[in-house]
Amino acid sequence: MEKEDQLLRPVIQSRNQAVQRIKESQQQFIFVASLLDRIPNIAGLARTCEVFKAAGLAVSDASIIHDKQFQLISVTAEKWVPIIEVPVFSLKVFRKEKKREGFSILGLEQTANSVPLDQYSFPRKTVLVLGREKEGIPVDIIHALDACVEIPQLGIIRSLNVHVSGAIALWEYTRQQRSKQL
Amino acid sequence: MEKEDQLLRPVIQSRNQAVQRIKESQQQFIFVASLLDRIPNIAGLARTCEVFKAAGLAVSDASIIHDKQFQLISVTAEKWVPIIEVPVFSLKVFRKEKKREGFSILGLEQTANSVPLDQYSFPRKTVLVLGREKEGIPVDIIHALDACVEIPQLGIIRSLNVHVSGAIALWEYTRQQRSKQL
Repeated sequence: MEKEDQLLRPVIQSRNQAVQRIKESQQQFIFVASLLDRIPNIAGLARTCEVFKAAGLAVSDASIIHDKQFQLISVTAEKWVPIIEVPVFSLKVFRKEKKREGFSILGLEQTANSVPLDQYSFPRKTVLVLGREKEGIPVDIIHALDACVEIPQLGIIRSLNVHVSGAIALWEYTRQQRSKQL
Repeated sequence: MEKEDQLLRPVIQSRNQAVQRIKESQQQFIFVASLLDRIPNIAGLARTCEVFKAAGLAVSDASIIHDKQFQLISVTAEKWVPIIEVPVFSLKVFRKEKKREGFSILGLEQTANSVPLDQYSFPRKTVLVLGREKEGIPVDIIHALDACVEIPQLGIIRSLNVHVSGAIALWEYTRQQRSKQL
């Protein structure tokens, strides 16, 4: 047994090191998609999270990853991006937990006090809450956020798809983190 | 007739002024989506073009705007964004025409010579060619482009949806133009 232990140790160590490396290379950015209804949007976000190495994607029901439509769009992204189950009624608890871990809790929403995306400096530890497809983020949740950012929209219809909005925000976060590293 | 002419003149003038104002507020950014196959991607791009007031969206077949699925996703964007018919076999002619008008013709593609999106300074007059959903931009078209830009992708699966990629590039263009105005 002792010999087996000795043989196993390097394997376990190298696995732990690999897990550590993955964690270190992750960006400290978490999407909260618990308010979203449409599977293509949530699956699309999983894929986008993987591309930008987000630290997690919170969804209202984690069993969504077994859905055929989800799998078709996410193209296995859910195997690489931690999917966190946060039902809408648990959002407040999740917010408190993440605050304790040093995250800023932001919303992507057009409000009277929203900061335009290109004038906002993202904290390294960011949780970004996305709104429902039609109604956006409910007012009581907005009040619990540290800040809201919005994508300056120049047109007339004034509505970007929520996956696209989220992707633009995650890109802007990524761009800012990269510019700090240069 | 002369009196009617006099009465009509202010109406025509104000209409011309309105058209002029719309043109002036447009960004000098044109997407070429002629290589794309999937209607949701093209319709999504139309919607995103409207939000950022792009000057046009080139598609291989302009009758796409009558498609039910297109209309459902584009939410009337095609009424505000000029849709330009550019079949794949006409891409070279279109490129020449736009070059003559002072546009730079860029591609959004991962190649050995692509410039990362956050290190590229977009010219005010930009035509951005998007690649096919699976195969990207064919090599003969890449060779005819002024430059290629790419979105730095940190993950393992390494593929953003083409509509999302395009939206991120158009946002980055918009951000740069806005920062020049401030």
